[in-house]
Amino acid sequence: MNKTDFFNAMSLLSASVNIITTDGPAGKGGITASAVCSVTDTPPTLLVCINKRSSIHNKIIQNKQVCINILSAGQEDIARVFAGQSDISHDERFVQSLWLVGGNGVPTLQEATVNLQGEVSHQQDSGSHTVFFIALSAVSFKENPSSLTYFNRQFHSLGHC
Amino acid sequence: MNKTDFFNAMSLLSASVNIITTDGPAGKGGITASAVCSVTDTPPTLLVCINKRSSIHNKIIQNKQVCINILSAGQEDIARVFAGQSDISHDERFVQSLWLVGGNGVPTLQEATVNLQGEVSHQQDSGSHTVFFIALSAVSFKENPSSLTYFNRQFHSLGHC
Repeated sequence: MNKTDFFNAMSLLSASVNIITTDGPAGKGGITASAVCSVTDTPPTLLVCINKRSSIHNKIIQNKQVCINILSAGQEDIARVFAGQSDISHDERFVQSLWLVGGNGVPTLQEATVNLQGEVSHQQDSGSHTVFFIALSAVSFKENPSSLTYFNRQFHSLGHC
Repeated sequence: MNKTDFFNAMSLLSASVNIITTDGPAGKGGITASAVCSVTDTPPTLLVCINKRSSIHNKIIQNKQVCINILSAGQEDIARVFAGQSDISHDERFVQSLWLVGGNGVPTLQEATVNLQGEVSHQQDSGSHTVFFIALSAVSFKENPSSLTYFNRQFHSLGHC
């Protein structure tokens, strides 16, 4: 299979848009990612697949602590900022929206549908990417959940808006 | 984090609805799954997370060959059949829709938005589940792609219907 076919196929795998954040000894970072997947409830674990060239990759390896912020309908702007699709510099990414600090020291985005804090429990090298398995420790929910979903290279809104 | 919070959070992670199929020495099988995630293009790989108690789990381990059928808008009925949410028996699952056989010998669902054939390249034990990394070998696309997406315990349709 050639890479164009692969990317075209993956663009048709609909998925939540999420901002993955980290903080700790290696500093703060954040990135928009849709490659997030439930793994198991024993113990509660999900996985996040991150490109090794991403600014956050080595920070996650060193910090271990992360937050998965599952975006709500209408949060396209911040999704674009953390995807590097705006004029906002890396340093200014976190001043564009309301962020709190979770119990594990990592930024949690207000108005996200779900904030999931956790720690890397395992990492799997996979070519250009690393798959991080995250053991979850805390969760917060927004009232009236909605979803910013990516499909066919466009944002879609699901649920309450 | 308790399991109820975990399952509630995962219900708010929107995702494609897919039917994962396999065939080979251990026999044919299929299951509806939303825990499918892009991994890397070097080489083209995705992952599928499967409960160890699922009927297809050991078949995938033995057969190695799978197909990920990414469902189109309007394919709720077959999603329910392969999720065990209908009166259709296991043996009759494959007679309810039009299936072809892919180059790797595994059933491919007609009218799916994408069919991705591949082989297990790595498996990662994770509590109640196994994460299967699938090296992709062939893909077919439906014209006018659409998506059957699951969010907040409901089906949603995206794209052309």
